[in-house]
Amino acid sequence: MRYLNNMKIYFAGSIRGGRDDSEKYFEIINYLKKHGEVLTEHVGDKTISELGEQSISAEEIYDRDLNWLREADIVIGEVSVPSLGVGYEIAKAEKLGKRILCVCQKLEENKKISAMIKGNKNIILKEYNNLSELFKIIDDFMLNSF
Amino acid sequence: MRYLNNMKIYFAGSIRGGRDDSEKYFEIINYLKKHGEVLTEHVGDKTISELGEQSISAEEIYDRDLNWLREADIVIGEVSVPSLGVGYEIAKAEKLGKRILCVCQKLEENKKISAMIKGNKNIILKEYNNLSELFKIIDDFMLNSF
Repeated sequence: MRYLNNMKIYFAGSIRGGRDDSEKYFEIINYLKKHGEVLTEHVGDKTISELGEQSISAEEIYDRDLNWLREADIVIGEVSVPSLGVGYEIAKAEKLGKRILCVCQKLEENKKISAMIKGNKNIILKEYNNLSELFKIIDDFMLNSF
Repeated sequence: MRYLNNMKIYFAGSIRGGRDDSEKYFEIINYLKKHGEVLTEHVGDKTISELGEQSISAEEIYDRDLNWLREADIVIGEVSVPSLGVGYEIAKAEKLGKRILCVCQKLEENKKISAMIKGNKNIILKEYNNLSELFKIIDDFMLNSF
């Protein structure tokens, strides 16, 4: 595969918090490949249920994911589905000094995303209505234009 | 109020991730007062919906909560309801070197909590079936016996 700019991308999405958006994660990951290597491609694997990965222990997942976070150039969190793991990963990414983009399906009027993300000056949070809007947000983020 | 050992306690529970457990948070916070001051008492306020606190901006909530985290002696996360904010707070607490206890309503067979918590050696994770079991876990944690 030919990467346009060879970024290492950590994509975070809900697994054990619920797999309602797994198909969307798959589409996003496919799009992200235009920009580089997605380290966490399994997040979009529709065969992984909310029981999580079965062939590897929690400790092994933790160590692997933290290593990927360290290795990543940028971190993108899809935060529409509340997830303990995604919140944890975003805070760790912040500690590691990574550029972080959080994206969220446009919310019903007044419904809000956690203040830990929305009120955090180190995180760019963008809402989208559909995948084409989201892909434009990702492209803009990659170009460092916001 | 007379505190038995005057701990400063940061209790983390879901707000914008969903308020299904707000009544339980209220009971836990009341119990925690036996051990000290609960900085985040609003988490158990049943009048706060999943829209979150309305009288304060996300930035102000973020700054306030991070200050409370720094100030806290211990951090207790109730992780039964998936929550971006709770995951974030736990990772921040870990960075700050706090003692962390995560508690979770006993899960259906095979259902698992995020590997970021379950596979993390810096976090004590305990499951409970009912509040009296949970209170015993809290007492044991306060006595530093696990």
